[in-house]
Amino acid sequence: MKLWQKSYTLDQQIEAFTVGQDRELDAYLAPWDILGSLAHVQMLTKIGLITEEELAQLQAALRRLYKKATEEGMTVEAGMEDIHSQVEYLLTEELGDIGKKIHAGRSRNDQVLVDLRLYFRSEIEEVTQLMGELFQTLLQLAEQHKDILLPGYTHYQAAMPSSFGLWFSAYAESLVDDLRLWQGIYQTINHNPLGSAAGYGASFPLDRRMTTELLGFEDLSYNVVHAQMGRGKSEQQLSYGIAGTAATLGKLAADVVLYVSQNFAFLSFPDELTTGSSIMPHKKNPDVFELLRARCNSLQALPVQISQLTAGLPSGYHRDFQLLKEAIFPALQQLKQCLSILNYALPHARPAERLLEDERYRYLFSVEAVNQLVLEGKPFREAYQIVGGQIANGTFEPPREIRHTHEGSIGNLCLPEIRAKWERIAQGFPFEQVGEAIRQLLQKA
Amino acid sequence: MKLWQKSYTLDQQIEAFTVGQDRELDAYLAPWDILGSLAHVQMLTKIGLITEEELAQLQAALRRLYKKATEEGMTVEAGMEDIHSQVEYLLTEELGDIGKKIHAGRSRNDQVLVDLRLYFRSEIEEVTQLMGELFQTLLQLAEQHKDILLPGYTHYQAAMPSSFGLWFSAYAESLVDDLRLWQGIYQTINHNPLGSAAGYGASFPLDRRMTTELLGFEDLSYNVVHAQMGRGKSEQQLSYGIAGTAATLGKLAADVVLYVSQNFAFLSFPDELTTGSSIMPHKKNPDVFELLRARCNSLQALPVQISQLTAGLPSGYHRDFQLLKEAIFPALQQLKQCLSILNYALPHARPAERLLEDERYRYLFSVEAVNQLVLEGKPFREAYQIVGGQIANGTFEPPREIRHTHEGSIGNLCLPEIRAKWERIAQGFPFEQVGEAIRQLLQKA
Amino acid sequence: MKLWQKSYTLDQQIEAFTVGQDRELDAYLAPWDILGSLAHVQMLTKIGLITEEELAQLQAALRRLYKKATEEGMTVEAGMEDIHSQVEYLLTEELGDIGKKIHAGRSRNDQVLVDLRLYFRSEIEEVTQLMGELFQTLLQLAEQHKDILLPGYTHYQAAMPSSFGLWFSAYAESLVDDLRLWQGIYQTINHNPLGSAAGYGASFPLDRRMTTELLGFEDLSYNVVHAQMGRGKSEQQLSYGIAGTAATLGKLAADVVLYVSQNFAFLSFPDELTTGSSIMPHKKNPDVFELLRARCNSLQALPVQISQLTAGLPSGYHRDFQLLKEAIFPALQQLKQCLSILNYALPHARPAERLLEDERYRYLFSVEAVNQLVLEGKPFREAYQIVGGQIANGTFEPPREIRHTHEGSIGNLCLPEIRAKWERIAQGFPFEQVGEAIRQLLQKA
Amino acid sequence: MKLWQKSYTLDQQIEAFTVGQDRELDAYLAPWDILGSLAHVQMLTKIGLITEEELAQLQAALRRLYKKATEEGMTVEAGMEDIHSQVEYLLTEELGDIGKKIHAGRSRNDQVLVDLRLYFRSEIEEVTQLMGELFQTLLQLAEQHKDILLPGYTHYQAAMPSSFGLWFSAYAESLVDDLRLWQGIYQTINHNPLGSAAGYGASFPLDRRMTTELLGFEDLSYNVVHAQMGRGKSEQQLSYGIAGTAATLGKLAADVVLYVSQNFAFLSFPDELTTGSSIMPHKKNPDVFELLRARCNSLQALPVQISQLTAGLPSGYHRDFQLLKEAIFPALQQLKQCLSILNYALPHARPAERLLEDERYRYLFSVEAVNQLVLEGKPFREAYQIVGGQIANGTFEPPREIRHTHEGSIGNLCLPEIRAKWERIAQGFPFEQVGEAIRQLLQKA
Repeated sequence: MKLWQKSYTLDQQIEAFTVGQDRELDAYLAPWDILGSLAHVQMLTKIGLITEEELAQLQAALRRLYKKATEEGMTVEAGMEDIHSQVEYLLTEELGDIGKKIHAGRSRNDQVLVDLRLYFRSEIEEVTQLMGELFQTLLQLAEQHKDILLPGYTHYQAAMPSSFGLWFSAYAESLVDDLRLWQGIYQTINHNPLGSAAGYGASFPLDRRMTTELLGFEDLSYNVVHAQMGRGKSEQQLSYGIAGTAATLGKLAADVVLYVSQNFAFLSFPDELTTGSSIMPHKKNPDVFELLRARCNSLQALPVQISQLTAGLPSGYHRDFQLLKEAIFPALQQLKQCLSILNYALPHARPAERLLEDERYRYLFSVEAVNQLVLEGKPFREAYQIVGGQIANGTFEPPREIRHTHEGSIGNLCLPEIRAKWERIAQGFPFEQVGEAIRQLLQKA
Repeated sequence: MKLWQKSYTLDQQIEAFTVGQDRELDAYLAPWDILGSLAHVQMLTKIGLITEEELAQLQAALRRLYKKATEEGMTVEAGMEDIHSQVEYLLTEELGDIGKKIHAGRSRNDQVLVDLRLYFRSEIEEVTQLMGELFQTLLQLAEQHKDILLPGYTHYQAAMPSSFGLWFSAYAESLVDDLRLWQGIYQTINHNPLGSAAGYGASFPLDRRMTTELLGFEDLSYNVVHAQMGRGKSEQQLSYGIAGTAATLGKLAADVVLYVSQNFAFLSFPDELTTGSSIMPHKKNPDVFELLRARCNSLQALPVQISQLTAGLPSGYHRDFQLLKEAIFPALQQLKQCLSILNYALPHARPAERLLEDERYRYLFSVEAVNQLVLEGKPFREAYQIVGGQIANGTFEPPREIRHTHEGSIGNLCLPEIRAKWERIAQGFPFEQVGEAIRQLLQKA
Repeated sequence: MKLWQKSYTLDQQIEAFTVGQDRELDAYLAPWDILGSLAHVQMLTKIGLITEEELAQLQAALRRLYKKATEEGMTVEAGMEDIHSQVEYLLTEELGDIGKKIHAGRSRNDQVLVDLRLYFRSEIEEVTQLMGELFQTLLQLAEQHKDILLPGYTHYQAAMPSSFGLWFSAYAESLVDDLRLWQGIYQTINHNPLGSAAGYGASFPLDRRMTTELLGFEDLSYNVVHAQMGRGKSEQQLSYGIAGTAATLGKLAADVVLYVSQNFAFLSFPDELTTGSSIMPHKKNPDVFELLRARCNSLQALPVQISQLTAGLPSGYHRDFQLLKEAIFPALQQLKQCLSILNYALPHARPAERLLEDERYRYLFSVEAVNQLVLEGKPFREAYQIVGGQIANGTFEPPREIRHTHEGSIGNLCLPEIRAKWERIAQGFPFEQVGEAIRQLLQKA
Repeated sequence: MKLWQKSYTLDQQIEAFTVGQDRELDAYLAPWDILGSLAHVQMLTKIGLITEEELAQLQAALRRLYKKATEEGMTVEAGMEDIHSQVEYLLTEELGDIGKKIHAGRSRNDQVLVDLRLYFRSEIEEVTQLMGELFQTLLQLAEQHKDILLPGYTHYQAAMPSSFGLWFSAYAESLVDDLRLWQGIYQTINHNPLGSAAGYGASFPLDRRMTTELLGFEDLSYNVVHAQMGRGKSEQQLSYGIAGTAATLGKLAADVVLYVSQNFAFLSFPDELTTGSSIMPHKKNPDVFELLRARCNSLQALPVQISQLTAGLPSGYHRDFQLLKEAIFPALQQLKQCLSILNYALPHARPAERLLEDERYRYLFSVEAVNQLVLEGKPFREAYQIVGGQIANGTFEPPREIRHTHEGSIGNLCLPEIRAKWERIAQGFPFEQVGEAIRQLLQKA
């Protein structure tokens, strides 16, 4: 963002414009680029383009680089075009000409495709694990506060009794829906594009099934044109996952901001989670939750940011795709940050007790009163008139004891059933197999 | 859209503004509203709020209405607020006070929730079936034209040999990724919200598992606040499915528009699929594909249209949700229309033959030539210099025979593998079980 | 939206798909198409392609059609492709071959361009007049309720004293900013594209200045390629005007929805503007304002709907542009509807009095108290400590009399200055000159 | 974007989350914050809250800080919350307690409002000057290449003769429309919000007209609630200006990418503006223009990114607004970068000559031939049949000499008229008066 400077020469401007933030973003891809190369050289050996001895040297060097990239980080140096050049440069520096052999049978295009998929796969794993932590937190809070009643609103109007148990666990069950969406996205991304070269395949007898297995992919992205079209499509699907989960978190944050307003006063937070003023002691500004709401609202624009970048482009590679990185990489970090912050902040929420005793909420119980009469045998219309009459002449006595018993109601939250839903989906992610494949790739023979 | 008229009185304007297109859109929900009622009354009988005799009468009347709604259509009359009132009105007209009994234990809120989910479920079934038809068409076209070569582009620059086999089947494999996304969405929608009442449950001992089974849902949307939050969330997930599939179709249409330009001339279409002019015989305007591209680009804005409607809203029902219908209902129809038109139009495409013999494309084969030398044992760098030298001194002879053999390449399209991917996912949709549940609900006992 | 039907034949589907809603939308353009033709034939006469006698006949017939179109409306009949064909057909039916002469020197492309600009010009006039009415209403309400105090919020936390005078007139001044945006848009649209033909001009010696003057345009859209590029660009600029004004109205609606909640209770409305329930007498659902908020939020997605349709398209006409109509035409109607509804509903708002006497709001006055001490000579820091001390030990007495005197504050609303701002901008719209040009065009010689 | 790290403690995460990129972005505001303070202290002196001696000290110190901020840059140090605290800290370090006096009569809220408006005003000045340079470049190129013909396309089909003169100047005239939009935006932003305090005014007798004049604003943003609502609204209007101009530049870039494809070959560029390959000598990848297209498409999503952040928020300050900076600040830099790059790159474009002699384009002249006959007296229908017949029997001779004479056509580009349009609008920006006011504020008395 500071690239544009009057003092830049025009050539530097061209350079700055075309590189943009790309080197910095490429640093995220370093370990994945190395892993992709590890699989590729093993395959090249099998089809005879690299000897066993060369392979041993390449593997050793690549594993050292991987260790460095994950432990110390790896930056794309100023002279280098991208992470692929950087890795190849380091390799050649160490091994000489052997380092250059790894470029046979692949192109920068399928190399970045495989890097991105490995990276996205890992990011989805982190995202869903943070979601899982938040899910557990929400269920615990629901269990803990299940007996505290809360006014339930429709049209921003107090309408019916609700409870903190219902409120917390509602968001837990919403995360289940979000997880389901992530699963489909994960599966789509978990297909191997390596071997598609510049998007039209290669005349080498590549063994794409072998790299698929080595990298722990579920299957191939077979058609090479399709593999190339994954650029843009992967990001679009990711944007749906991000936006969908952000919608859940954003609504939760919107609720909190409202609930801590002194006009509601349903929740309060300790001082480290609010900002205030010593001369306005009532003010507890929920900055963290306002920023969460804003961030989550903003993330919901991501799908259209992605589709603006790709809409109307015919098939084949376009340099336009470079900008996808700067849309999607920060968004992934931001979503993880939101999950992490919420997971930290929510257990500090202090629900207000005895809220429904406030006279303002007495009519919340009118529907209860009507239903009570119906259950006692009165026709609905008559029951309705009786309660309406009581309210009109001031004799209405709110039946403050809530006896909701059906599935998912105040008195029967079905938390185990909700937890079981989560488990069923969570088991469908092949994180273990993927992790095992990566471990094997990194292991010395 | 014609509602705003100067001659309207202001009260009519208020009425027109609040109703908007809602009555017209509600007509889509008629059969689903009746099905929801069929399940609800059976459950009310079980918990003792309706007698067996009343049930029999209600079922008979509801089944007649269902038949009418599906065969003749049902409109929401001017005096009626929505489809729920319309159905209840028709029922009461026939059965008197018994007709009113069906409203016990539910609210307009969960009624519209269940209607929408049944409707969306059915729409996804139609969408995915049309996708399946297009998938088969694309594979057939790929098989049929697999030997016709096509220039492959990067940066809009002719780069490498491709083929119509690759091109058609690339889009087939992309539809597989879209189908996977639809599956997660379908599963989320296929959960029963009935019984959540106004979003806070009810004091009746509703048997929500029973209605879940009767309506063929996979499971309950347990938490009643969560069920209510499905409004907005279902539409958002649907918008992802729609936008994702539209992105695939839109790219295909963008390719076609380019390919029929006389500057490419890769494809042609018969006259009924183009418009032209007798004095510009070269002009074959691809209006159908331009409109497909535009429609699909436009559908990719849907996610943000939905999130603009809901961003920032706290939990609980808001009247704002009404406008979700006018965003999502037409979009579903438009997507189906796009699928159907493409499926009709594509088999009429006539690929041009011998394209790569044009001198313009001779350098497409330079990478082939280099790889050839590498396979014959030359180091890559040397091979590259040899071919570069031939090109420079005009002795380059393009090796026009393409021998790509790896998975997913010109010579090895892996169509059976791609078809198998589709089948695996398609089997995961429980359309048969759902259909069977609905049939049972409609059957006379 | 009902076009897609299984019973349609495929040819009908193609027809339905390519026509879409276009015939219906084209009906809006009927009078403008006729006006464009009136100017065009007068110009063709000047350059000798039409005789004076033919002109007289054409003018008479076109004026009759204009009267019909504005008084009874004009529909595009099923056989007709668009409004241009419809008008030409009616003309030819009446005048025979003379009717066909009007097509010389123009193309369907510049014809629709001029129709759209005339239509948009007229729509902006209507929009800004409705904005003017709402502006006056808001100023009147501000004047009327200027002495009623209201809690002012930051972070949804009650923070400082505000007033209904401030609140109402804030939105009036916001409309001034919106009006300024509309003015630039109007000026851009008020340039004549007629004569650009298919986007590349014509070999006829057209007199484009003449049609510019006849149609009351400010100037020409000179460059014919630029004139053609106005398609998409006009709609994009309109979308900014619509979204910008919608943002103002949407925020006002969001305030109202909150203010009528019983947790705020700052405003109430008579029953015809709310919905409620006899057993929940506290509930006054602000459906009208919720729908306003939703509609205005939705309209803010319009810019991206437009840019999705055009992003990536090179210059020149594309059939994609047809879909711009279905994005922009309803949005214009919806915005006018929102303005009209608000203008009707707001004067029914009943501000609550004595709000700030509620103990909940006592600390709103703490900043006042500090400033008071500062004005009396105490250093700020000391004043702050004094008031903080009073609050801490419970001796704080809120200085409930507000003495804000600076420009734009509670005690000095500057309504005349705000009104003067509006007037200065409003005078810049050349509605009178435009109206006079149109009247002359329609007058018998 | 690197904020989220597993090793962070949770408190650091909260800190990192709430600060985000804000300190870095605030650095842009440093000089404007100082200027705002210079005006504020002069006003406080007038109303007696600061003495003349204190004023002199404050002015001297602030002017030194301004020099430092503009010459060396100013960063917000880690301990500081924002740029306002940073400036106040530096001031207090130098002047002691006097430095703290500047905070009287204003709040962080109106301080950031005035900073942003001064910054945006300056950015618009830079943007419109770069637009002016590009405008001149385009007109020069149009003049230079006005005789080189180019195929004109509709539906991506070659349709009519066009010219490079038309093509270049079309984009110049489009920039005029964009400039008009910027003018309205500039005027809205050029109103003084200082004195609105936390959004509800202050009890000090502030002289807001005085600061208005000192800072060179056109007028006051009178109503203090309105001034506060400018947060979000200013950014939204800016987003329209940015998106609108980006649409023009993006279309130009899309044309270029197409024109340099060997399937069109209308334009070429020297090597430093393309990337290529020695074994694919035909390939000249237009990376710069692809990235321009992508960036400009992406910038068109900005309006919805902004409205996602603000949609649904009621009036008053919300912390959500902080994220507006990270949406709008980089977008302004990116737009300037795009303008600058285009202005550099376009003069290097080399139009291909004699394009229309290619047989592929012979039918471009068929409309010319028809019109020719009409001008010679043949009725249109007959002329059309004659030319159609010639084409059908192969005797058609394209009349390759183009004689378009009307305003804005190939033979009559009206470049002076287009330049005059620009000048008329450009004169309406009060950059000189604004600059003069700022100079006076910075001058020693």
